[in-house]
Amino acid sequence: MTSAFLDMTAQECRARLAGSTVGRVAFCGRRGPQIYPVNYAVDDGDVVFRVAPYTNLGMEVVGSPVAFEVDDLDPESRSGWSVVVSGTAVAVDDPDDLTRLRRRGPEPWAQGQRQLVVRIASASVTGRQVSGG
Amino acid sequence: MTSAFLDMTAQECRARLAGSTVGRVAFCGRRGPQIYPVNYAVDDGDVVFRVAPYTNLGMEVVGSPVAFEVDDLDPESRSGWSVVVSGTAVAVDDPDDLTRLRRRGPEPWAQGQRQLVVRIASASVTGRQVSGG
Repeated sequence: MTSAFLDMTAQECRARLAGSTVGRVAFCGRRGPQIYPVNYAVDDGDVVFRVAPYTNLGMEVVGSPVAFEVDDLDPESRSGWSVVVSGTAVAVDDPDDLTRLRRRGPEPWAQGQRQLVVRIASASVTGRQVSGG
Repeated sequence: MTSAFLDMTAQECRARLAGSTVGRVAFCGRRGPQIYPVNYAVDDGDVVFRVAPYTNLGMEVVGSPVAFEVDDLDPESRSGWSVVVSGTAVAVDDPDDLTRLRRRGPEPWAQGQRQLVVRIASASVTGRQVSGG
């Protein structure tokens, strides 16, 4: 069985992003490439997630170019999709935005304070579908 | 509901890696951080995947430090796990290894030639479990 890749439209990518809650953020840290799964939300078109400020992710990601990936890939049928957002991670510091996002935005799974709210200012969104043939 | 993170042992990480077939490889490319989902296999303890040589991934990943992530995260129960392999991507060029891996190694999903076989020479494997509390 072979599968085929198809580019997704921007609209399809946005719909997939809005329909998921877990992605992986990758960036180039001091010790090389880093990748972390995060719980996220889409706010005003941008991916937003919360991190603890004093973690490797929290300390290194802000100000960095990032690639953020969401997918749903099924090994059985060899089909699924993957969307990648490329942009820059910026700390949300507007008080109104912070209040709103801490109340209605991405809720972190793990216990502990995750007070740093990070927005990916998107430069590009691309996606590919792969379907079993 | 809150969840808690727990570090996984090396043995647990290896078991999770061996039990999955889809991961995401991240590296620092010429245009910044890149992340690609790939179908993989574990060969002699290393993550191995196949790519087409004349793609962005194929042209940039070899020789690069990479972070490779596999996870299974369930938003409903807010539980799951994530394993990250950090190492260097090297092209497999030993003829016997190539023959073996092309026959029994990771089978790429999509049609087309994916003749480049890449091994992640692992520097470290870490993992975390998150369980809904």
